[in-house]
Amino acid sequence: MAQSPYKQLEQEWKRLHAFRGAMAVLRWDAAVMMPRGSADVRGEQLAALETEYHSLVTSPRITRLLDRAQANTANLEDWHIANMREMRRQRDFAIATPVALVSRLAKAASKAEAKWLYARETGKFEDFAPHLEEVVHLVRDKAQLLGQARNLAPYDALMDEFSPGVTSAEIDAMFKSLARRLPGLIRDVLARQELQPTLPIIGKFSGGKQRALCVEIMKAIGFPFDRGRLDESEHPFTEGVPGDMRVTTRFDPAEPFSGLLGALHETGHAMYDVGLPADYADQPVGRDRGMALEESQSLLMEMIVCRSRPFVTYLKPLLEKHFGVSGPEWSEENLYELTYTLHIQLRYELENQLLSGELAVRNLRDAWNSSMEQRLGVKPASDLEGVLQDVHWAVGSFGYFPSYALGAVMAAQFFEALHDALPDVDAEIARGNFSGLMGWLRQNVHSQGARVSAPELFKFSTGKPLSAAPVLRYLESKYLGEQSVVGSAAA
Amino acid sequence: MAQSPYKQLEQEWKRLHAFRGAMAVLRWDAAVMMPRGSADVRGEQLAALETEYHSLVTSPRITRLLDRAQANTANLEDWHIANMREMRRQRDFAIATPVALVSRLAKAASKAEAKWLYARETGKFEDFAPHLEEVVHLVRDKAQLLGQARNLAPYDALMDEFSPGVTSAEIDAMFKSLARRLPGLIRDVLARQELQPTLPIIGKFSGGKQRALCVEIMKAIGFPFDRGRLDESEHPFTEGVPGDMRVTTRFDPAEPFSGLLGALHETGHAMYDVGLPADYADQPVGRDRGMALEESQSLLMEMIVCRSRPFVTYLKPLLEKHFGVSGPEWSEENLYELTYTLHIQLRYELENQLLSGELAVRNLRDAWNSSMEQRLGVKPASDLEGVLQDVHWAVGSFGYFPSYALGAVMAAQFFEALHDALPDVDAEIARGNFSGLMGWLRQNVHSQGARVSAPELFKFSTGKPLSAAPVLRYLESKYLGEQSVVGSAAA
Repeated sequence: MAQSPYKQLEQEWKRLHAFRGAMAVLRWDAAVMMPRGSADVRGEQLAALETEYHSLVTSPRITRLLDRAQANTANLEDWHIANMREMRRQRDFAIATPVALVSRLAKAASKAEAKWLYARETGKFEDFAPHLEEVVHLVRDKAQLLGQARNLAPYDALMDEFSPGVTSAEIDAMFKSLARRLPGLIRDVLARQELQPTLPIIGKFSGGKQRALCVEIMKAIGFPFDRGRLDESEHPFTEGVPGDMRVTTRFDPAEPFSGLLGALHETGHAMYDVGLPADYADQPVGRDRGMALEESQSLLMEMIVCRSRPFVTYLKPLLEKHFGVSGPEWSEENLYELTYTLHIQLRYELENQLLSGELAVRNLRDAWNSSMEQRLGVKPASDLEGVLQDVHWAVGSFGYFPSYALGAVMAAQFFEALHDALPDVDAEIARGNFSGLMGWLRQNVHSQGARVSAPELFKFSTGKPLSAAPVLRYLESKYLGEQSVVGSAAA
Repeated sequence: MAQSPYKQLEQEWKRLHAFRGAMAVLRWDAAVMMPRGSADVRGEQLAALETEYHSLVTSPRITRLLDRAQANTANLEDWHIANMREMRRQRDFAIATPVALVSRLAKAASKAEAKWLYARETGKFEDFAPHLEEVVHLVRDKAQLLGQARNLAPYDALMDEFSPGVTSAEIDAMFKSLARRLPGLIRDVLARQELQPTLPIIGKFSGGKQRALCVEIMKAIGFPFDRGRLDESEHPFTEGVPGDMRVTTRFDPAEPFSGLLGALHETGHAMYDVGLPADYADQPVGRDRGMALEESQSLLMEMIVCRSRPFVTYLKPLLEKHFGVSGPEWSEENLYELTYTLHIQLRYELENQLLSGELAVRNLRDAWNSSMEQRLGVKPASDLEGVLQDVHWAVGSFGYFPSYALGAVMAAQFFEALHDALPDVDAEIARGNFSGLMGWLRQNVHSQGARVSAPELFKFSTGKPLSAAPVLRYLESKYLGEQSVVGSAAA
């Protein structure tokens, strides 16, 4: 008996999912294991798989099956109909980007990533710049083609890849709300920090000890080590598919919290992916609902949960156990003060200028440094903390940074909602019990996959439309202590 | 301007080569890095890539291009013509094996490999047997289909995959020559070893120290660490493509030589692959000339070069440096005596019986143990040293073991030829200088790729047809010291 068109589509995407998982392993390996001289070879491999993936998604067979399946949806469940909507979205996106460009971009990104790693060792932006330039050119071409096909401004078209359904009008409105309050907030925080300086952490903490600490906390959160790994790489990331999640962080002996917070950020991503609907694990509707939601989960974990007073209460004895440390700089109060870090994104503007051609790659370092100085009054100590900071541009991920900002806004709203629903959550976290937190997120966010749009999902889980108010409330409470959204119960 | 049919074929195989490299990384990762619970996911990924590879090789386009290119070979070089011969060989082989079988075998092998690893921990053959049974069934189907298509006995058809052009008549003749002398030789060696017992090595040597020793020696041999890695896995193997070679070994703290010899065996494979003709790196003619030749290179390195007196002279100060050891058991004489190990293959017969159905998987352990006892008078201490010894059967590599035997015969003949051509080679090896040895192999064997058949390559490099005489001369000299083919110069 012939399978229904819908069932045949499910089979096609099962195969595409396997390709996607294979590419994830190749990318993880490139960043964690691959010898540097092998970048060319790996570039060819990724390009061949990307090309094949692209040609499978855009095949006439898929279009034919989609048309036939959509002509008769009488016997299909809601999840199936949502799945077809996501299939068509993927197909439309692929058709708008020609295969030659996809292949060239994959090769250029693979090379640029290796050169970025090298430049971080030599500290020379010049070694990396020509390779970034090649990537920028190709991304610019892609943005224009996508924009034409989807009737969007080039940058918006890229952003849509990461945060489906989110318009730049919404992003602009959100940045506007934030811009009204943030500069004053930063000024107040800096003034307050001058009055209440934190005690610096001095000492060296081996990678092995830092790793053991991370593993203990990740296990408490529920990370499945029988179907996932924690490794080291130059820049923390999460790669893989549910069933084989690869999380990385970077251990600096002098900065024990940076490796931990990196691992916890990535654990937030991984737990989202692990919690996606298992029945649709190899289908488009079983995937995350875009990068802004991904970032909401990682930032919720890193910035809100793990920089809270209850978490510090849980963390303190673990630091004594793994690092054997004590003294006033390891007190709960000082540890909590240390978590005060404001993350401001200047990349949004810079990458817009790079893509429009207004800013040349060779001038990027100067633009970065002067922009930092204007906004925050500080200059990066070296390119490693500045223009070479992370890998997103090298691998062609333009349009990604607004997802961070949007993710932070979403994270705060999720946390307000779950805090209302679970009055004991602070006390649980202080005891290292994350089951209430993760259970709420799994039920209300993760298990929904891509069934509905991000705004609908938001309404479903928090009962309210997206707003910048919760993140501003959270920041004021956290940085200035004017009110307590988080943490008073267990402090 | 349209490309010639031959150039288009080269493009097609460039893509196939990228797929092959990607699958190699996925397999390496499965054995070295992958969390155990991810075996199902990985199986799906490998099956999807195998299936795609298969459908690309068997596409009507390839057949059409091959026919057109072969109709006009006037402007093609010898290498190109040889390349087309190898392309057709790969195509014929793929057409004879249906894609559903390839995919099921890849999935079953991926699962069986994970279960084999697990059984090695629990020591329970029973945990592994049902999965091996599934693999045996599928391999049996494959052997029958291949045999029908290529007009060969089922087992011969499998062997042809690993050692192209080598017939089972040749293998039988070789085993016959060896069988005339080997049993007597084994008796003599055992008698002699009873008279001159070696001093056992006692102590624990950390994985880190063993690794440092391996890396120093591999560097001296010329292994390119900027395009390759050494890792640990349950069973030593070499995976990857030239440009990204992954070698593994297994470090047992109580057996420092087993990890070293494993690494050196795999280095022999890797150096063959690294030395293949770079101009044809992504083409069939640029590949190794089958598994027997691969094994000739690994056994030449492990058994002949690295178990020789000159090598022991080079090794002794390195052992002092890395392990900080001295005493009579670390003398050159005792170290050399320790390298006396006869490797006899009983697998050839057992796997023949498994495939014919004469032997059931559930009886495999008993058959293994009683066969060992009959031939060598010893019983494996546990299944780890017996039926669970290595991974080849789990991953479906039946027909592979005769390649070991053939490889050993070839290795001895290569070594006689290069020893004649390079009178100083022993003294060079004793000083840790491997450039003469590797230079001869690269020029006469590695750089020839798959340009000619194995017998022709053999004639080209050694000036003689393949014969069992050199390996018997080598074994008698090594084990009984009746004559000196190797090592007297530097002893």
